[in-house]
Amino acid sequence: MPGTTKRGEFDMEEKIYIGAGYYPDHWPRERWPKDIAMMKEAGIKVLRLAELSWSFLEPTDGEFDFTWLDEFMEMASKEGIQFMLSTPFEASPPWLRKKHPEIVRTDNFGRIHGARGLHCKNNKTFIHYVDRLTNKMAAHYANHESVIGWQIDNELRNVECYCPDCREGFIKWLQDRYGTLEKLNETWGTKFWSQVYNSWDEVTPPSADQLTISISQKLDFTRFGSDSTVNHVKRQVDILKKHAPHQFVTHNTMGWYERLNYYDLAKDLDFIGWDCYPSVDGDPHIECFINDHHRSTKHKAHWILEQKNGYFNYSDYNLAIEPGLVRLWSYLNISRGANGILYYRWRSNRYSNEQNPNGLLRHDGSPRRAYFEAKQITNELAKFGDELASTTVEAPVALFYDYDQIWAFDAHKQYRNFDHRGHMLTYYRALAKMGITADLCAPTTDLSKYKVVIAPSMAMVSDEIYENLKIYVENGGCLIIGARSGFKDWANVTIDEPWPGKLAEMAGLMVDEFEVLPDRYANKIAYNGKEYSVKVWLDMLETNSAESLATYKEKFYAGRTAVAKNKYGKGMVYYVGVMGSDEFASDFLRDVAEEQNVDTYNVPKGIFASSRINDNVRYTFYINNNREQTTVPLKESGYDVIAEKEVAKEAVINGLGVLIVKSV
Amino acid sequence: MPGTTKRGEFDMEEKIYIGAGYYPDHWPRERWPKDIAMMKEAGIKVLRLAELSWSFLEPTDGEFDFTWLDEFMEMASKEGIQFMLSTPFEASPPWLRKKHPEIVRTDNFGRIHGARGLHCKNNKTFIHYVDRLTNKMAAHYANHESVIGWQIDNELRNVECYCPDCREGFIKWLQDRYGTLEKLNETWGTKFWSQVYNSWDEVTPPSADQLTISISQKLDFTRFGSDSTVNHVKRQVDILKKHAPHQFVTHNTMGWYERLNYYDLAKDLDFIGWDCYPSVDGDPHIECFINDHHRSTKHKAHWILEQKNGYFNYSDYNLAIEPGLVRLWSYLNISRGANGILYYRWRSNRYSNEQNPNGLLRHDGSPRRAYFEAKQITNELAKFGDELASTTVEAPVALFYDYDQIWAFDAHKQYRNFDHRGHMLTYYRALAKMGITADLCAPTTDLSKYKVVIAPSMAMVSDEIYENLKIYVENGGCLIIGARSGFKDWANVTIDEPWPGKLAEMAGLMVDEFEVLPDRYANKIAYNGKEYSVKVWLDMLETNSAESLATYKEKFYAGRTAVAKNKYGKGMVYYVGVMGSDEFASDFLRDVAEEQNVDTYNVPKGIFASSRINDNVRYTFYINNNREQTTVPLKESGYDVIAEKEVAKEAVINGLGVLIVKSV
Amino acid sequence: MPGTTKRGEFDMEEKIYIGAGYYPDHWPRERWPKDIAMMKEAGIKVLRLAELSWSFLEPTDGEFDFTWLDEFMEMASKEGIQFMLSTPFEASPPWLRKKHPEIVRTDNFGRIHGARGLHCKNNKTFIHYVDRLTNKMAAHYANHESVIGWQIDNELRNVECYCPDCREGFIKWLQDRYGTLEKLNETWGTKFWSQVYNSWDEVTPPSADQLTISISQKLDFTRFGSDSTVNHVKRQVDILKKHAPHQFVTHNTMGWYERLNYYDLAKDLDFIGWDCYPSVDGDPHIECFINDHHRSTKHKAHWILEQKNGYFNYSDYNLAIEPGLVRLWSYLNISRGANGILYYRWRSNRYSNEQNPNGLLRHDGSPRRAYFEAKQITNELAKFGDELASTTVEAPVALFYDYDQIWAFDAHKQYRNFDHRGHMLTYYRALAKMGITADLCAPTTDLSKYKVVIAPSMAMVSDEIYENLKIYVENGGCLIIGARSGFKDWANVTIDEPWPGKLAEMAGLMVDEFEVLPDRYANKIAYNGKEYSVKVWLDMLETNSAESLATYKEKFYAGRTAVAKNKYGKGMVYYVGVMGSDEFASDFLRDVAEEQNVDTYNVPKGIFASSRINDNVRYTFYINNNREQTTVPLKESGYDVIAEKEVAKEAVINGLGVLIVKSV
Repeated sequence: MPGTTKRGEFDMEEKIYIGAGYYPDHWPRERWPKDIAMMKEAGIKVLRLAELSWSFLEPTDGEFDFTWLDEFMEMASKEGIQFMLSTPFEASPPWLRKKHPEIVRTDNFGRIHGARGLHCKNNKTFIHYVDRLTNKMAAHYANHESVIGWQIDNELRNVECYCPDCREGFIKWLQDRYGTLEKLNETWGTKFWSQVYNSWDEVTPPSADQLTISISQKLDFTRFGSDSTVNHVKRQVDILKKHAPHQFVTHNTMGWYERLNYYDLAKDLDFIGWDCYPSVDGDPHIECFINDHHRSTKHKAHWILEQKNGYFNYSDYNLAIEPGLVRLWSYLNISRGANGILYYRWRSNRYSNEQNPNGLLRHDGSPRRAYFEAKQITNELAKFGDELASTTVEAPVALFYDYDQIWAFDAHKQYRNFDHRGHMLTYYRALAKMGITADLCAPTTDLSKYKVVIAPSMAMVSDEIYENLKIYVENGGCLIIGARSGFKDWANVTIDEPWPGKLAEMAGLMVDEFEVLPDRYANKIAYNGKEYSVKVWLDMLETNSAESLATYKEKFYAGRTAVAKNKYGKGMVYYVGVMGSDEFASDFLRDVAEEQNVDTYNVPKGIFASSRINDNVRYTFYINNNREQTTVPLKESGYDVIAEKEVAKEAVINGLGVLIVKSV
Repeated sequence: MPGTTKRGEFDMEEKIYIGAGYYPDHWPRERWPKDIAMMKEAGIKVLRLAELSWSFLEPTDGEFDFTWLDEFMEMASKEGIQFMLSTPFEASPPWLRKKHPEIVRTDNFGRIHGARGLHCKNNKTFIHYVDRLTNKMAAHYANHESVIGWQIDNELRNVECYCPDCREGFIKWLQDRYGTLEKLNETWGTKFWSQVYNSWDEVTPPSADQLTISISQKLDFTRFGSDSTVNHVKRQVDILKKHAPHQFVTHNTMGWYERLNYYDLAKDLDFIGWDCYPSVDGDPHIECFINDHHRSTKHKAHWILEQKNGYFNYSDYNLAIEPGLVRLWSYLNISRGANGILYYRWRSNRYSNEQNPNGLLRHDGSPRRAYFEAKQITNELAKFGDELASTTVEAPVALFYDYDQIWAFDAHKQYRNFDHRGHMLTYYRALAKMGITADLCAPTTDLSKYKVVIAPSMAMVSDEIYENLKIYVENGGCLIIGARSGFKDWANVTIDEPWPGKLAEMAGLMVDEFEVLPDRYANKIAYNGKEYSVKVWLDMLETNSAESLATYKEKFYAGRTAVAKNKYGKGMVYYVGVMGSDEFASDFLRDVAEEQNVDTYNVPKGIFASSRINDNVRYTFYINNNREQTTVPLKESGYDVIAEKEVAKEAVINGLGVLIVKSV
Repeated sequence: MPGTTKRGEFDMEEKIYIGAGYYPDHWPRERWPKDIAMMKEAGIKVLRLAELSWSFLEPTDGEFDFTWLDEFMEMASKEGIQFMLSTPFEASPPWLRKKHPEIVRTDNFGRIHGARGLHCKNNKTFIHYVDRLTNKMAAHYANHESVIGWQIDNELRNVECYCPDCREGFIKWLQDRYGTLEKLNETWGTKFWSQVYNSWDEVTPPSADQLTISISQKLDFTRFGSDSTVNHVKRQVDILKKHAPHQFVTHNTMGWYERLNYYDLAKDLDFIGWDCYPSVDGDPHIECFINDHHRSTKHKAHWILEQKNGYFNYSDYNLAIEPGLVRLWSYLNISRGANGILYYRWRSNRYSNEQNPNGLLRHDGSPRRAYFEAKQITNELAKFGDELASTTVEAPVALFYDYDQIWAFDAHKQYRNFDHRGHMLTYYRALAKMGITADLCAPTTDLSKYKVVIAPSMAMVSDEIYENLKIYVENGGCLIIGARSGFKDWANVTIDEPWPGKLAEMAGLMVDEFEVLPDRYANKIAYNGKEYSVKVWLDMLETNSAESLATYKEKFYAGRTAVAKNKYGKGMVYYVGVMGSDEFASDFLRDVAEEQNVDTYNVPKGIFASSRINDNVRYTFYINNNREQTTVPLKESGYDVIAEKEVAKEAVINGLGVLIVKSV
């Protein structure tokens, strides 16, 4: 019931939370009551507070001041507003950096070189200050009736830091991983280019003063950097949970950021969140992709901790956010599993780097269009939000998104025109065209629930991954392996066995050669009587037990196999030795979907269709990204929960409109 | 009378000075008489000397040697040549840098990192050496009969230096400006991103080791850097004037350089100068613009202290300077207010970075084509130069060129496809097409003499600017305000009032929203029954007392006001909420000019037309930038002072030719 | 006789050596016998060993271990394999860099900043370690029966290092060159920009902390850096020759690398080598050019010390190496003077930066296609290789390739669209089209044997060069001088005499002006009744005794001379004042060739034709770079040594095929 709260009341599966980021420290107290009233009017019921407020929470070293925050929270909680507090460590106060400049990361040239958020997460001094303030805040707010949870820091990254503490930490990390120096030398292949280490203190991060840098070293340094950030989170989680186990902890990622392992990050969180800043003229597949990935880190609902509603400074231009677009973004995120949306930010910021009209309110405190769209959403969700919150996204396909592979490619690009994102999106878009939502999950996920599993470009195959795939296929699963797979070990080192190594047996073939084509070249393959242009990476396959499905048409390897299929155990393995054709990906995946009995649906252009389900109910979302009215054939008839009427067969959705059909 | 000189005789309004830059220290003494004879033959009567000659003037620390210079000056002054001496501080001698490497600027990473001219202007040691040599030179030449003045240093810049002296200076500068730290915190909005300063010694320049850099800090650091250079000039001016108040002081700017406030710079100078290096295939509007701006820094005649006549190394290519072009450049500059032209340089340089044929003479000492053009000019000016020198440029319109705005945009680009130069040129070219010359002046200039005042993109409005505009309009002026105006205070902070803030009342409207379009998009506006494509920044206006003149045609804001007009006091205020259309700027300004009774003239393509006037006479210049003969309708009949004949109605001007018509 | 060896048996004119680079230290000993057997099978008879193996040869400071190498060599030599050993200094072991980080070069900002091979060659510590290990290796292998020679280091560069040792070395180098500081000041023209040195310790490398950097200083610093690398080689040569004068020494350059003077480098070597990594879709003129240049450094046969046969990581993409291409590259190199081909590498590497299939064997040890092509080549060469080895390349024309000119242009680009490589290739391709092979030699080479000598863009003319050219022409030679010649002295300083300076008299003309056109512009010249588009640099010539051959057609200098011809002594001098037309270069050179009685041949498109001759025999190579069969008219009838049959008139060569015709 609105207007009443109890101690940290929170169940993310009981309702969809709509809120905003607010900075009471930025505005005069006289304004607070007006803001709270306007929040109430718009149905904003949860606020993120204290983010980036270190200067106010600890104005000088060891002196803490939560009074300003307490006062605001007292005023707002009376009006039924709940709070997620943020640990404010993205920006440190000048007094701290003056005393300890070394808390800022050191770059690969040994220079202290900063930017917001670039603190060294291994620096002992920084850790001391972070832990102390986290303890103070946790203790102070553990029993606050309106504090439902915490956001750890803000948009964390893999801070590549080369300071002495990081060097020490990296050596420790390697010792934990490899045990002996001999094992490290062997794993990295330091015999190459005479880089054999005689003692641990010869080991360094890949800094600029080194004569040679191993790509295995680079990969491990990225892993170490990701782990360092994850540890920074975990330390805070432990403190917060010690004081207030009933309050949730989360973190807001930067979305599609590849240098931090979100699977590891999510482990310590109650749920994960991300900050959603779509381009007005961007491809909304990107936001779908990010949602699908975040949901898959924990296989449960996530939150949008910052939902763009206005303009930002970090792009070359700023298209007007058309009427309806803020609402569309919100529902798109909900349709993909978000159970919370916090608009960033309540009121537009006046100072420094983020001065554009980026709030639900203008700089002058009057409501912008976005304010009214937020209000519309809270009104609409009042009708069906609670039931919707209990559903989960229907995803019959798994598409592997594996940080170690990405980092291995980054450490060793091999071919600059290989684009991991583009490659993922080729598969992703082909699924979306058929209305299939994929979980974007790790290759070590339990795969038993998936009808099809896609492993695009999995260069490195660990024993654990191999076993997971083997069990899945042997038990009847369908696995699609992409080109450029299976030829490296987990240290980014090429195997000394025929390619694709561990995958060769289940794929029933060998990779004989490959070539890598820049954009100006292409080959063709023939598949099911149709020709497709292919490029980037082309594997030339020699089938053993596998059946050839597609062959090359040009050059000296014309006639050789490009795509093959192999029965293995009770299941099926496809090897797709080509890249670079959206059209082939579509036709091929449609054939596989049919073979594997995955429901497909011809999604009209510009529409995103997906479902949230539980045992009792199905909510099907049709999001119209077109600027004009679009007629959409319905997957199922049912009840339009927004317009509150029955719909059947097809529906007309306004430009930038949303249709949500409930069926049972 | 040629050939005679007296003590420092100089009156820049009595004649047009034609001269050259000369380096007696670079050539054998045996050659001097020949050079002097050739100068005399060409009518070269003033030389710039001693520029970049520190190594010769002070060969070792504290040992001064002016004998070589005295000897040359004695020889040349006998032939009626006068001298402008340069303080030689752009390049310091190796002995000084060996002793004091810290006189070179320190970059934002704390590294000493040099290039010609990049001395730290706040370094106490550098100041010591500069003051000492300036004193020596000033004392030595104060009573020299042929020394008419001084050029301070050479092509000064805003040297962004992060050395300890600069840090100390910056803090001092901030203390002078803001008084208290509280005021600084409040003005910069350090509450944003937790950057509140607790003590002055926490304040730093925006160096690379800082975690966050405020855009207000950046703006103030640019102001500080500009002030530092201005102080470097002022210190030398004071010394020179102490010794020789009758000798002029000037400085040669780099032309269109935006990091140094030329208004501040000009204050301490008797007149300002600039170095003119046009591209053969460039847009000559650029040189017109630079002249108009330099003239407007002091509202009096300026000099060209280096006039390109040959090739340079700093471009990708070097088109041949066609016959007539050196003469055209010279007259173009004179037409826009230059009363002195010093060719750079007398003889082409043999050494190091500037070795191309860049002199009136070849490397071998023989005359190049440019020599003969210079000679032609001195012959022509003998007929009318003295009278011309007493005239000033007719400029009925003011176009604001405001360094603080530019620096604010630089510190906070917001939208990368906003191009301040391009935006200025849109207005400037539209005026030039009508034959209207504008003063490119500061918004705090006395505006009473202008029929129209244009303020393009004035984001920040100070109280002083506001008052100046208010008085101007109230008393009957016509003010045009461009898009992206009025929403910031003087610290680059967004106001918390409706936009355009202080300008809202006189403009009679409010800016509701805006959008920023990259080049691939555009909207349209309808104005006077015609449509115009607009892009970059588009303000959506809500008129109060203002009358809507143009409305948008597309997107959700079609029908909303783009351009409006408001009567205010006895005057008129236009708000032009759009950018990006040269055609609209032309049509609109023509309508305004008509309304405000500004004389217009349809300038033929490739022609620049402008006038220099005094109470008795009018000189109208027609500069033909076309390579072919062009027929030009004359604004007024009169006397062709070069061909020495009457002209009426229209005239044919040769390719790259010049027509100067005197009328009364 | 295959299978038998004696002490260091080697005569590079007795056979064509086919071998490979091998790393016994990278593979298990159990594999060695298998590798050796496969080498034998393929006819691989020489191996490069120990390259980049410092970590294994000196595992800790002062402890040496050659046992692993000895064991492999013992096993392989039994099978008739010979060895070239490499000094392993390109990559230093971690223990050494830990102890002496300063052996890595210091960049121009004073930072130790590494990459493979970037050791400071003047660092005293590095020299100590290099000398010690070279001595140890030389002593150990001086009497090994199968060691035929040594490769010094690997792909050496001009390491631009700014460490104290380099600074000291640079000053010493300048003292040796100039004697007095006065002479240095005068030569560099330090009077320009006040850079006069008062003492030697004021002189610095062109480091980033310097206020100004002279282009003469830059040129000399490049010369010093090249000399430093040459000295690094010479020190090792001296040590090796002291121990084993009968073993050859060579070095493998990076091919077309311009910062190291290969003439100086070659002086101390028995023969020069280079590493050949063609692009599959590149222009094979490049490889011809590099061969012609390397051959001309010593005017004797050279080796390919690394012959690409697989994929590498350093390009954006990797096209499949089509069947036949490895063989084609090998014969192309042989046709241009290579008497040895070592494939890089035997087996594909598994570790770090070079992991692609880059060996004759796959990573798994099975043979790739390239293996079989290598085997085919050894079989073919068994028929005619020994005789071929005794021939030399027929080259009737000299085309100057002068490092000092290149460095002068680099130090002082003047015009960015001047491309020295492109300019060289214009002449080179025009010759190749006529089947003329040029020696790409220094301008101080003995020219008496050449029918035509081409000096393209020789800006700096030393006395030595001038005398060499003068004698050549006076005695009846034909010299072609390109645009942008003769206007500088050897210190990169413009002369104070009319251009082209020393060359003016023999050219019979003066350069009056020039212009430099970017790609978007061009002028035209008329030559022999035909028009040619010209651009980049255009000299406008004033003929004295010379005859005008071509004149400009456009702009104000239409009708002025662009190309001229002058009889001088018994010879002829052409001055070609234009650049940028391949077509003109072709037509013009064909006329000159005809005049000078140089044999020409209309080479079909995609074919490279050249001959190797001795007093008894002529081998004419026709290399077909086309992917399709091509019919080729034969220069001479003869015996097809591969197909072992007589051929006459014309022949059909398969795509990527090779025809070698022996005639007498």
